[in-house]
Amino acid sequence: MALIVHKYGGTSMGSTERIRNVAKRVAKWHRAGHQMVVVPSAMSGETNRLLALAKEVAPEKPGTAYYRELDQLAATGEQASSALLAIALQAEGLEAVSFTGWQVPIRTNDAYTKARIESIDDARIQAELAAGKVVIITGFQGIDAAGNVTTLGRGGSDTSAVAVAAAIGAAECLIYTDVDGVYTTDPRIVPEARRLERISFEEMLEMASMGSKVLQIRSVEFAGKYRVPIRVLSSFTPWDIDLNEEARSGTLITFEDDESMEQAVVSGIAFNRDEAKITVLGVPDTPGIAYQILGAVADANVEVDVIIQNISKDGKTDFSFTVHRNDLAKTLDLLKTQVAPKLGAAEVVGDAKICKVSIVGIGMRSHVGVASRMFRCLSEEGINIQMISTSEIKTSVVIDEKYMELAVRALHREFDLDQPVDSLGNR
Amino acid sequence: MALIVHKYGGTSMGSTERIRNVAKRVAKWHRAGHQMVVVPSAMSGETNRLLALAKEVAPEKPGTAYYRELDQLAATGEQASSALLAIALQAEGLEAVSFTGWQVPIRTNDAYTKARIESIDDARIQAELAAGKVVIITGFQGIDAAGNVTTLGRGGSDTSAVAVAAAIGAAECLIYTDVDGVYTTDPRIVPEARRLERISFEEMLEMASMGSKVLQIRSVEFAGKYRVPIRVLSSFTPWDIDLNEEARSGTLITFEDDESMEQAVVSGIAFNRDEAKITVLGVPDTPGIAYQILGAVADANVEVDVIIQNISKDGKTDFSFTVHRNDLAKTLDLLKTQVAPKLGAAEVVGDAKICKVSIVGIGMRSHVGVASRMFRCLSEEGINIQMISTSEIKTSVVIDEKYMELAVRALHREFDLDQPVDSLGNR
Repeated sequence: MALIVHKYGGTSMGSTERIRNVAKRVAKWHRAGHQMVVVPSAMSGETNRLLALAKEVAPEKPGTAYYRELDQLAATGEQASSALLAIALQAEGLEAVSFTGWQVPIRTNDAYTKARIESIDDARIQAELAAGKVVIITGFQGIDAAGNVTTLGRGGSDTSAVAVAAAIGAAECLIYTDVDGVYTTDPRIVPEARRLERISFEEMLEMASMGSKVLQIRSVEFAGKYRVPIRVLSSFTPWDIDLNEEARSGTLITFEDDESMEQAVVSGIAFNRDEAKITVLGVPDTPGIAYQILGAVADANVEVDVIIQNISKDGKTDFSFTVHRNDLAKTLDLLKTQVAPKLGAAEVVGDAKICKVSIVGIGMRSHVGVASRMFRCLSEEGINIQMISTSEIKTSVVIDEKYMELAVRALHREFDLDQPVDSLGNR
Repeated sequence: MALIVHKYGGTSMGSTERIRNVAKRVAKWHRAGHQMVVVPSAMSGETNRLLALAKEVAPEKPGTAYYRELDQLAATGEQASSALLAIALQAEGLEAVSFTGWQVPIRTNDAYTKARIESIDDARIQAELAAGKVVIITGFQGIDAAGNVTTLGRGGSDTSAVAVAAAIGAAECLIYTDVDGVYTTDPRIVPEARRLERISFEEMLEMASMGSKVLQIRSVEFAGKYRVPIRVLSSFTPWDIDLNEEARSGTLITFEDDESMEQAVVSGIAFNRDEAKITVLGVPDTPGIAYQILGAVADANVEVDVIIQNISKDGKTDFSFTVHRNDLAKTLDLLKTQVAPKLGAAEVVGDAKICKVSIVGIGMRSHVGVASRMFRCLSEEGINIQMISTSEIKTSVVIDEKYMELAVRALHREFDLDQPVDSLGNR
């Protein structure tokens, strides 16, 4: 018997029939002797429906007062789905009670539409669990110090579930979703992609930040910070599948000092097409250039990812970085009108037709030559590398967007990711 | 400049376009210098949609745990509509903030799905008003002592609005609805029915309890208790109608000691078809009969309305009363199987084809002969009276259902309700 958190995404909660199936699955776990806390998302489409109503009422009006009301509006989706799940569980003969973020309470800062969880009071949850109830807690939302409703941003229910699991000391947080785990790469691009039985939370962090949409990145950070084991698994297996089989399915996100961890050199290939490259050409190579360029960009609230400064030539240098594609036009305009003239730069050019491809693996720490093997593989395919960025467990390259699929497939093959890993992490 | 509460029903909030119109109307009042509090219902159809989802998930399971979740679910409708209205008001250039029942808080007992308001803390409302904001408060809901969401039952937003008006000391509570006021009777039955400019809250109470659906009866009781002037008016006048004209439109529900009150003998004709008559025949006329019959009925949670005990004959008597039609079968069964045998009653008969028609008027207190004028009128139309019930300001008769329209029209004519009333209350 253990204390278990289940999280169900919008698709899993997408109809009253699916909600009944969720209830049957949770009831199976409860009857097996586990104490159950369930964190559901809103029914699929509901959050979009609510936000569309807001846009129908009035154009967006950025600002605290407006975002506060958006959160007050959007939070109703999970309140409704949680109550429906409680009703479904009661129909299964269990005692069940649903709590909103403010009823727990889940305290957050007041950054409406993207709030961060600060603390969770587990007293009420523990009391209801002790009374034998299944406790349902709305995902995606909390309450700020002034008693206003906040939401955690898209995918925030993952973070809610992991934070609740940390607060109550759950043995495991099971994230039920519409995929059956974390893959070596996107199976739509590489059919041979293989489901990972385990992945370290650091690798997962890199995969998530690279656009693998399986988990909200903040939930992975939370899991790492509080050492909550997360399992990503499918909500589309029949609800009456054997519990032990279910408990071993999907992908377990665990910690690298876990002895049984498979230490593959490369665990997965991540990629995204969301970025654009900006190059400031012919900048006088004096101290403080990076700050003068990127400081202005940061002031405009634009996030920068890969950054490169070329070797200086004739006292001039080129400075490149990537931003989200949505920020390209705004950033180009800022640089051309305000920054370049001041710096005396020759030109500012933008390129949206790029992509970022990364190899991710804990094993890279202890294996040399992994990055050069990546570069050789890409070179053999005739793919020109525009930018390179490395971290302890990741090597990313920026390449022409049109080579993305080719690069991902070649790297997947190069690192034998279609082969299972033995207990020593070797393929 | 005054402190004003507006309440908008589901139809008035029924689309994003209508919500924008509500915002424009409220903005007009705010710009005229009034401090504004607005209590909206859920968008029309929303509460039904939510409760239908609950029924799709599982059959009703009467009990506290189930009703708690229904309230948690249903309360989301007003939370969403309130946030949307705040957004619409912000788009009008006003500062606006929406609060749920628990954010105010509006404290209620824990009778889920039909809770009663116990207290309202007006500190947060007053602070936001003082800061120049329009304050929007969800109708229909509150919070119990344990922090659970409660709802006030169908039409509960009227009660929320009146209770909020009482708590903050509002000058007037304007209930915007899909009719333009309170009528002498239902205009669908009597085309000559006239809108009343004023009606006393006691008369309104009788009209409301008789099925006039304009206001939830509890909101009228609240208004009487806390002496909150209520005005019922149409939300379908153009939003930019002259404010002074709008402020005088509809029907004002006021207090009988108000000097300007029109003291018509009869103010309106109410009726309903929701009741059924039950007669226990041939009961031995011994003390305690009424208790033995009605005690058993009350124990079965059935509400009784009109009660009549005939004059005894040969030591036997007949005992009749009316119940809601939905309770007829259950009550008949109870009486036949459990009560009649014990009492030694000859027979129990039920009749669902009846209706109740009432004349209502404060003036009946000081005018004699009003009831007999009613009976004469019905007799001239050949309508047989089956039961009679009187109160200080109301006389009700139970008649065959098929005569209902005829009776209502005849009485409307008899008491000259199609004629305006002069300042002395005379027609």
